[in-house]
Amino acid sequence: MRGFVFLENDPFSPIRYIYRVSGILYSGKSRYQEIVVLESPDFGKMLVLDGVVQLTERDEFFYHEMLAHVILHAHPNPKTVLIVGGGDGGTLREVLKHSSVKRVQLVELDRQVIEVSKRFFPGLAGGFSDPRVHVKCMDGTHYVRQAGDHFDVVIVDATDPVGYGKRLFTDQFFADVLSVLSETGMFVIQTESLHFHHKFVADMQIRLSKLFKVVELYCIPLATYAGNWWTFSIASTKHPVDAQNRKQEVITKYYDEEAHKKAFVPRNLHRKLLDGSLDW
Amino acid sequence: MRGFVFLENDPFSPIRYIYRVSGILYSGKSRYQEIVVLESPDFGKMLVLDGVVQLTERDEFFYHEMLAHVILHAHPNPKTVLIVGGGDGGTLREVLKHSSVKRVQLVELDRQVIEVSKRFFPGLAGGFSDPRVHVKCMDGTHYVRQAGDHFDVVIVDATDPVGYGKRLFTDQFFADVLSVLSETGMFVIQTESLHFHHKFVADMQIRLSKLFKVVELYCIPLATYAGNWWTFSIASTKHPVDAQNRKQEVITKYYDEEAHKKAFVPRNLHRKLLDGSLDW
Repeated sequence: MRGFVFLENDPFSPIRYIYRVSGILYSGKSRYQEIVVLESPDFGKMLVLDGVVQLTERDEFFYHEMLAHVILHAHPNPKTVLIVGGGDGGTLREVLKHSSVKRVQLVELDRQVIEVSKRFFPGLAGGFSDPRVHVKCMDGTHYVRQAGDHFDVVIVDATDPVGYGKRLFTDQFFADVLSVLSETGMFVIQTESLHFHHKFVADMQIRLSKLFKVVELYCIPLATYAGNWWTFSIASTKHPVDAQNRKQEVITKYYDEEAHKKAFVPRNLHRKLLDGSLDW
Repeated sequence: MRGFVFLENDPFSPIRYIYRVSGILYSGKSRYQEIVVLESPDFGKMLVLDGVVQLTERDEFFYHEMLAHVILHAHPNPKTVLIVGGGDGGTLREVLKHSSVKRVQLVELDRQVIEVSKRFFPGLAGGFSDPRVHVKCMDGTHYVRQAGDHFDVVIVDATDPVGYGKRLFTDQFFADVLSVLSETGMFVIQTESLHFHHKFVADMQIRLSKLFKVVELYCIPLATYAGNWWTFSIASTKHPVDAQNRKQEVITKYYDEEAHKKAFVPRNLHRKLLDGSLDW
């Protein structure tokens, strides 16, 4: 590797990543964070927030498909969806593939992330012009505290739990999410790496279990998130989530019924995670 | 991250990794490669060959458990095992946990890797003193061409397919492996990352299919191998390998029956990999 590189600055990771870079397409500061768009010969365009890679064109579909389609197939009939965060539009794109979904409320803190995505990532941001979509630019924690609405599915597409991101990982926020869920509602949130942050993952699972009837954990391997064995904590007020309750109707690159089932962590591992006996 | 760091030099990866390092415990050149042992505050001791991390004390068990136990549980009664490579002893340690195994032949090119492992990684190298173990230091490709023996299981624990490592990924070598397998024999080899090297993985699977009746693919997420969605190509002359044919008797940190089954890639993904329609 030689030439121009980008050194990632991920405060949550014991490994730092270096990417080859062929250009800086955008660099700006919003009220909340530094926003950079890089061009990489290996990964296409990359969105970087406060020095941490959020997505690359090459592999974003893994994260967005597995964040959106597991919960939307586990729920028997999702009509209304709340996305907290996800200003790049990738999760929105996947959610809109479901014909059952009649209304999506997206609440993104940083309007500038949406604008940058519309400009540089048209493959992700197309959903913003869909008539089913309603966007609010505000703090998601405020939104769920005040929302009069109920949703069948709530998806939190958050950055790491640092700075503003921290607010989306609190007991208060989880309780507020529960209060905006419909009777058969389901909730999913990314919860970092099982390799590097398993104590954090366990803490999230235990705290969610105090509020939700069903709490499970699934993972996907992501090459561009340090720690890479990325977890999603998924909670339900009624139905199990480790199997599809609806037949797959969406076209995907990776997600399918088998990937859905296999993503859920083995029961023994889940038990060890929760009782604190995981020894790595 | 600040202070003393190690910049990995992995020619096979589009991302380069940087690790914090608290000391260099050993540095030497063998006839075949540069061998370094680092101390990391995050990963414990690390073995580095020609600038590429081979293992860390913190997470080596993932790789070694999943390399050894999938094949040894898929085989109905493994008595004799050939390990090609694996001079650090980690795979050997796992193989020896099986009471059915009466004889293990380990063939490592570089004697100095074994010596360094015995000195710095006693948690891995303990198996070398087991009376069931026979060690030869020579080129594994020569060994399988000349071996009079037959083995129930052949495990190739190789470095990346560069330099000397290349020889362990050729048609000739695979054919020679087949010739040393017993009638119900099975063969497993690491085949790089499904994220970064899927064309390589596909090529390996297709070439193995020309020789073996059953060829399957399983993966584990490894934080310290760039590309991390690490593949193992597993081939059998007779039995399927995606399910355990023997009940688990070994004590493990990660491997179990459910992890075994879930590690095999979804059928749709496998099909797309083989027909060249994987689009990432």
